[in-house]
Amino acid sequence: MKHNFGAGPCILPKEVFQEASEAVIDFNNTGLSILEISHRSKEFEQVVIEAEALVRELLQVPDDYSVLFLQGGATQQFAMVPMNILPEGGKAAYLDTGVWATKAAKEASKLGTVEVVASSSDKNYNYIPKDFSVPADATYFHYTSNNTIYGTEVFEKPQVDIPTVVDMSSDILSRVINVADHDIIYAGAQKNMGAAGVTLVIVKNSILGTSGRNLPSIFDYQSHAKAGSMFNTPPVFSIYVSMLNLRWLKAKGGVSVIEQENIIKARTLYEEIDRNPLFKGTANEEDRSRMNVTFVMDTPEQEAAFLELAKKRGLVGIKGHRSVGGFRASIYNALSITSINALVDAMKEFEELSK
Amino acid sequence: MKHNFGAGPCILPKEVFQEASEAVIDFNNTGLSILEISHRSKEFEQVVIEAEALVRELLQVPDDYSVLFLQGGATQQFAMVPMNILPEGGKAAYLDTGVWATKAAKEASKLGTVEVVASSSDKNYNYIPKDFSVPADATYFHYTSNNTIYGTEVFEKPQVDIPTVVDMSSDILSRVINVADHDIIYAGAQKNMGAAGVTLVIVKNSILGTSGRNLPSIFDYQSHAKAGSMFNTPPVFSIYVSMLNLRWLKAKGGVSVIEQENIIKARTLYEEIDRNPLFKGTANEEDRSRMNVTFVMDTPEQEAAFLELAKKRGLVGIKGHRSVGGFRASIYNALSITSINALVDAMKEFEELSK
Repeated sequence: MKHNFGAGPCILPKEVFQEASEAVIDFNNTGLSILEISHRSKEFEQVVIEAEALVRELLQVPDDYSVLFLQGGATQQFAMVPMNILPEGGKAAYLDTGVWATKAAKEASKLGTVEVVASSSDKNYNYIPKDFSVPADATYFHYTSNNTIYGTEVFEKPQVDIPTVVDMSSDILSRVINVADHDIIYAGAQKNMGAAGVTLVIVKNSILGTSGRNLPSIFDYQSHAKAGSMFNTPPVFSIYVSMLNLRWLKAKGGVSVIEQENIIKARTLYEEIDRNPLFKGTANEEDRSRMNVTFVMDTPEQEAAFLELAKKRGLVGIKGHRSVGGFRASIYNALSITSINALVDAMKEFEELSK
Repeated sequence: MKHNFGAGPCILPKEVFQEASEAVIDFNNTGLSILEISHRSKEFEQVVIEAEALVRELLQVPDDYSVLFLQGGATQQFAMVPMNILPEGGKAAYLDTGVWATKAAKEASKLGTVEVVASSSDKNYNYIPKDFSVPADATYFHYTSNNTIYGTEVFEKPQVDIPTVVDMSSDILSRVINVADHDIIYAGAQKNMGAAGVTLVIVKNSILGTSGRNLPSIFDYQSHAKAGSMFNTPPVFSIYVSMLNLRWLKAKGGVSVIEQENIIKARTLYEEIDRNPLFKGTANEEDRSRMNVTFVMDTPEQEAAFLELAKKRGLVGIKGHRSVGGFRASIYNALSITSINALVDAMKEFEELSK
């Protein structure tokens, strides 16, 4: 058995793989593959409608928000957010908590003035800056709620009194949130929502079109909102896989239930990191992510040896990002406590072997 | 058995469905689903490399062109083309051969001046205008090589002496082309290349960056060219399905072989349309598409009755687009001559029944 701790694209439930695999041969008893049906067919329109309804239900999205399934990943949203809500010559405030936050700010700076209100780059992003204020003339504030590379997470929306945009690519649907805290929430699907190729955007209707820019239609949230995410041919299969995954999450009891599981999973692993003298967590304790657990060992030799043992135990995808080193265990929704225990057991086994 | 004449997303080879379905459970004996592997894994990097190599080989792409796999469909290319090659205040020439060509021109007009050099809108786009010239000060000329709705196709690149851009979404890989005739060729995958969710862009390197605009990185072809289509998380599964489909095409003998099949398929169907007194082709004979065959009957009652018979014979997706009416049989690469014969047989059967 393999335990997939990959950072994303990442593990999804086995049931989702099974059903998706069958639909590639015969979708909903249509006699046709999900890959060959028209996106305008009743059967696929139903998929999009159900996927949207599930997002609305699972995240309790208020009625005055649109739920969109787009293409291009979070990286395209780095540009589309300012294109849609930052007027020409306007200013936006960005919180810098890592590479992805930096990239988001850099892309926005091509479309207006960006003020980085705080950064944790001084400590290789191992904490979340909390003491900052946003300029009064900024149109919006942007932050990244979970920083996969560094293993930090923002659990409380920063206290700012301007419209707020959040990139939740790696923690959407992993914990209960108050959607109304934000004007835009976006997330590449390929962590907790589904497979790569689709991006979730939840946007407050009242800010649609407020940049006043003459945008190509494909970059205007309004085009997609009006068309129910069918403005042009959507990524059919990726939306279908998201729908299956959202169904799975609902059947499990929804976001509040998975949040409790995620808390237990993360606690189990962090407890071992803190107990085991061979391992050391890299993120500031109070900012530790529940999605990506980063830790190191004292020497490269030890790390190489543990990686070898992990491999033997079927633990894949735990090598840390090069900018932090060591290990990163990504423990998204679909990763079971069994896999956490397998990792913890390997850590204990390695401790024994080292004695 | 169902015969899928849908306009796209459309039929792909059964072998592709089979292999894709298996990979959703276990990709390349990795023990992991294609949906959960990292896009940075060696196994997936190999998929992108092979997909690009197959496009290069099958279309004989010159070395000074980049082959990119992007997101957002042809609609996103309607904007990205001018963003990348039309300087601020520049002018572009567009040929109007239908709804998609009109949309491409409309999006470009948000980024510069567009001159529509000719249009067949006077006859509901049932022909390809051939007698036109392009303004000397236009930066590029754009046309749509196959017009799915109207069943027309441009087989020879129009004679213009400025850089030319073509939307080949619905006939790429269906016939031999000379890539060097064009500076940019783009195509949504979901007809002859693969499943929805990925877009092929073939672009001459010397025109990269020539618009001089300060583009968000995701919209700059250069970002994707430098990163080998891995600038951000790519649509993993859609690229994989394209790779399988390109392999299938190569195993069949390549584009010149499929072109001969497509010629025979189209001829077989057009011959029946011309012979059978109950049916009438809608496109100008010399501009008839080999991909989408459009035809009508004398009365709505006849059409409803034929549609009913077709349904009984397992022929799906043949209802015409509302703007043309009647029928549209899309006969892409993966549709076999068996399916063509089934449609022709139904047309003959209907003729008999009507006597």
